[in-house]
Amino acid sequence: MTAQKLETHITLVNDRLQFSGKARNNPSVLMDYFPPFGDGEGYTGLEMLLLSLSGCSCTAIKVLLQKMNKTVEGLTLEASGIMQEAAPYTFSRINLVYTLTSPDAEDAEFEKAIRLAETSMCPVWAMLKGNVEIVDNHRLIKTEPTP
Amino acid sequence: MTAQKLETHITLVNDRLQFSGKARNNPSVLMDYFPPFGDGEGYTGLEMLLLSLSGCSCTAIKVLLQKMNKTVEGLTLEASGIMQEAAPYTFSRINLVYTLTSPDAEDAEFEKAIRLAETSMCPVWAMLKGNVEIVDNHRLIKTEPTP
Repeated sequence: MTAQKLETHITLVNDRLQFSGKARNNPSVLMDYFPPFGDGEGYTGLEMLLLSLSGCSCTAIKVLLQKMNKTVEGLTLEASGIMQEAAPYTFSRINLVYTLTSPDAEDAEFEKAIRLAETSMCPVWAMLKGNVEIVDNHRLIKTEPTP
Repeated sequence: MTAQKLETHITLVNDRLQFSGKARNNPSVLMDYFPPFGDGEGYTGLEMLLLSLSGCSCTAIKVLLQKMNKTVEGLTLEASGIMQEAAPYTFSRINLVYTLTSPDAEDAEFEKAIRLAETSMCPVWAMLKGNVEIVDNHRLIKTEPTP
């Protein structure tokens, strides 16, 4: 992988707190804040953070499982965080629940891929580390191997 | 503000690295990774992180400027980050360029709002602090006051 510059742009699109964000040629993402400050018509910054960590870690896990020659029939992640009530309103903890559907992956391999994502393959996880507690769990759904 | 749990869900939607993510009733966001690993058909996790920090900090800045009784005619943020070439591929630095369009805000007030976002109002900034260098600049476009 070579050094690459990533760029995003956001702009206020109403007189409240709705912003439209974009990178490259992707469809715009609407962001907003909860009432009464905003109108709730879009993702909050903290939801975007959960999606960022989710996409980043699942990308790493999928690549790692492929390198182990494992079949990934499905991979999902439920992420949640409790907003603290005092400034700076960070998450007290982020909970991650990974679910892998596979005919040939073992639980230990799934666990290993998650640990490698955490320690060396997922930059978003690395940039949050130490600043917020991140707790992960995982569930493996074993399917019948294709004959 | 009361404690609130935020939840997101992502799921793999092809046999490569495209994931669909969602929170509440918002439209889904497609995430993907660059070729050759993925097909580039969606936001990367790191782009989502830039959007997260952007939305979060601009929300705080807009609220703070309103509290100072300043008129916000426009607020944009260009964010960029250079991906490092070695694991865990974190950003070496994030650059933020805020642009405020206002007839009555002064540069010092804009600067003050950015500093308050950084230090106490933007949870995403707080959760990245110390783990990645974040450098901000700002530009104020003064418009004619409405008669």
